[in-house]
Amino acid sequence: MKVADLTIAPIGGAVTAPAGFRATGVACGIKKSGLDLALIVSDRDASAAAVFTTNRAQAAPVIVSKAQLAASAGRARAIVINSGCANACTGDAGADTARAMVEATARHAHCANVEVLVASTGVIGVELDCDVVTSGIASAAAALDRDGGPSAARAIMTTDPFPKEAAVEVTAATGAYRIGGIAKGSGMIEPMMATMLGVVTTDAAVAPALLQRALTAAVDVTFNAISVDGECSTNDCVFALAGGASGVQIGDAELPTFIEALRRVCEALAIGIVRGGEGATKLVTVRVTGARSDEDAKRAARAIANSPLVKTAVHGADPNWGRLVAVAGRAGVEFQLERCAIAIGDVELFAHGRPYDDRAPEASRHLQGTDVELHVDLGTGGRGRARMWTCDLSADYVRINAEYRT
Amino acid sequence: MKVADLTIAPIGGAVTAPAGFRATGVACGIKKSGLDLALIVSDRDASAAAVFTTNRAQAAPVIVSKAQLAASAGRARAIVINSGCANACTGDAGADTARAMVEATARHAHCANVEVLVASTGVIGVELDCDVVTSGIASAAAALDRDGGPSAARAIMTTDPFPKEAAVEVTAATGAYRIGGIAKGSGMIEPMMATMLGVVTTDAAVAPALLQRALTAAVDVTFNAISVDGECSTNDCVFALAGGASGVQIGDAELPTFIEALRRVCEALAIGIVRGGEGATKLVTVRVTGARSDEDAKRAARAIANSPLVKTAVHGADPNWGRLVAVAGRAGVEFQLERCAIAIGDVELFAHGRPYDDRAPEASRHLQGTDVELHVDLGTGGRGRARMWTCDLSADYVRINAEYRT
Repeated sequence: MKVADLTIAPIGGAVTAPAGFRATGVACGIKKSGLDLALIVSDRDASAAAVFTTNRAQAAPVIVSKAQLAASAGRARAIVINSGCANACTGDAGADTARAMVEATARHAHCANVEVLVASTGVIGVELDCDVVTSGIASAAAALDRDGGPSAARAIMTTDPFPKEAAVEVTAATGAYRIGGIAKGSGMIEPMMATMLGVVTTDAAVAPALLQRALTAAVDVTFNAISVDGECSTNDCVFALAGGASGVQIGDAELPTFIEALRRVCEALAIGIVRGGEGATKLVTVRVTGARSDEDAKRAARAIANSPLVKTAVHGADPNWGRLVAVAGRAGVEFQLERCAIAIGDVELFAHGRPYDDRAPEASRHLQGTDVELHVDLGTGGRGRARMWTCDLSADYVRINAEYRT
Repeated sequence: MKVADLTIAPIGGAVTAPAGFRATGVACGIKKSGLDLALIVSDRDASAAAVFTTNRAQAAPVIVSKAQLAASAGRARAIVINSGCANACTGDAGADTARAMVEATARHAHCANVEVLVASTGVIGVELDCDVVTSGIASAAAALDRDGGPSAARAIMTTDPFPKEAAVEVTAATGAYRIGGIAKGSGMIEPMMATMLGVVTTDAAVAPALLQRALTAAVDVTFNAISVDGECSTNDCVFALAGGASGVQIGDAELPTFIEALRRVCEALAIGIVRGGEGATKLVTVRVTGARSDEDAKRAARAIANSPLVKTAVHGADPNWGRLVAVAGRAGVEFQLERCAIAIGDVELFAHGRPYDDRAPEASRHLQGTDVELHVDLGTGGRGRARMWTCDLSADYVRINAEYRT
């Protein structure tokens, strides 16, 4: 997608950067301390789209939000998200609570039940107190603010080391519009906790079907192209709301620019999740080229991004190209050892069937930085390519996930 | 397979437990110190079978041994294995060295070139010194011994914390025979090193096609059912030799008992590899039941065995059943949350759609041991089942793999 850089400029404000949205984060007592409930409301009827976890164990709010979107045919006015409890594996009581969250939000945000989407993140298998969360929703509705986006970004955090927010302003031929977003990562310190959540809003007017197409396209190369530890949660979801307050209408002609702007917001949020990954000290960009197809490239990139041997080597700044060869070879895609090429940063360490070990010190210096690039050409001569982001695997990851209760 | 226990008894002696085999391990200078070359020779013509790595980046000895087995139509007299250098990603020179190892072994063990199999394990991308290894082969041939199996087991170690050997004596209606084996694990401390190797020998007489069928069946539920870190190497292989010195002939009728005995030897070796896994402090047996098919069960078991969140929870003795639910749900197989069941040891922690958190302390006590059982019933009502062995993920794993060169 070729889009002139000057038409898409980064701005502040998160999900309230676009006109026509209010948001807030409040502390209602689900967590022992800190913000734990976010509410995002569109002042106008809005198109809605969503991408949900593919996990077959789905939390109650995921099931409820899917049904809501289907019933509303892609319209929504409010998104309510609690942190501190995933409301997953909680049976009928959990489903009741998710529905009660929808009803309380509709009542306090003055919209129809069917116009509310709900998400939860936190501990799995623990009941979410219905009274606590619904009275939190009442407080949040009273605190909604045109500048509340950053506060909502903080309220959806669990063990994230920092909040994730991003926004852009698009200057298009037909006028200016904005896209804003917030996300939380999979900082899985709490026992049984694992969720990636994102919300993007825009004041462009986008029909539900187009918004869904744009969201799916953007998520595919951003949120779906990151991995902290290869785990996929019971609660993952990304929501999009398009309210149209800017007056700019997105049709088929404007869609490529809209998708590119949405992609930039999602990419910033997704990279933030990786940087804030558990125990992460480095952001690792994995690029795979020379694959038979983009699908093959993606599969190889994912195998590399999830390889504990690659991730520990990066952590130790060890330019261990042999591990990249071994992972590419086992990724289940076509790979030609004699024609493949492996580079760390700009330093080619294996090519033309032979190693260049004299370059190892230079590659090691690159790995000592916080932003690391790994490049594997699979050597098939094909044009398939993919990019993924991951982080290094540190002893802190193990400590965080092993020693929580000890 | 129902086989009376009393017909298969564990014995000592490793690959030289069966009659008609000699072996040894020598130090020839590939490693800085210690045994680094193993030679195993059958005194009689022997059937041969092998299972090789599925990695598309294959080391020179793997390519050579495959060609040897094809050319000999499943016959072999000698197996030569060096440690300290994987002879992988070494181009034409590496292929020449692997062939030179075959020729030197044939010359000194007095058999035909085509009757020699070769394997290497150690650092990837480093040249194997041809003179060093071939003179090592001459020394090894002079040191071959009827009791040399355990010495061969030590010579194929790289960073394994202990040697892996096993042997059984089978008392069958038609007479007694023995099966012995050695293996090495994937202790990947050395940079770019990753190999699982195994050799099994028997003094039963087994035609090549039957031997291959038996080996494939046994490897499938043993060596192929273990995981230390989900990595698959460029050099993995398991060889089997059947010399027939016992006079016992294995035909179709005797095959089930033979496979069961072979499975026990391979299982003992495979479990030894997991116990000796990098940073491992616990042997974890993962059982999956209630799957649509055995394939589905295997896929779910593999996802659990490779999940960093499960492995860190086990390391920390945290009875974190939510992580097992989440991994089972994302494994890409049918899974029914409401009907699934999760147990740690004998303690059911989630069943009938609800958690039993009061049992967590009992499950935690089980996890504090060195032998841990995880059981997931996928809740589909199907009969598919699988078993895998893995180890916990410790900070030592990260340290070993990250800090080698720092």
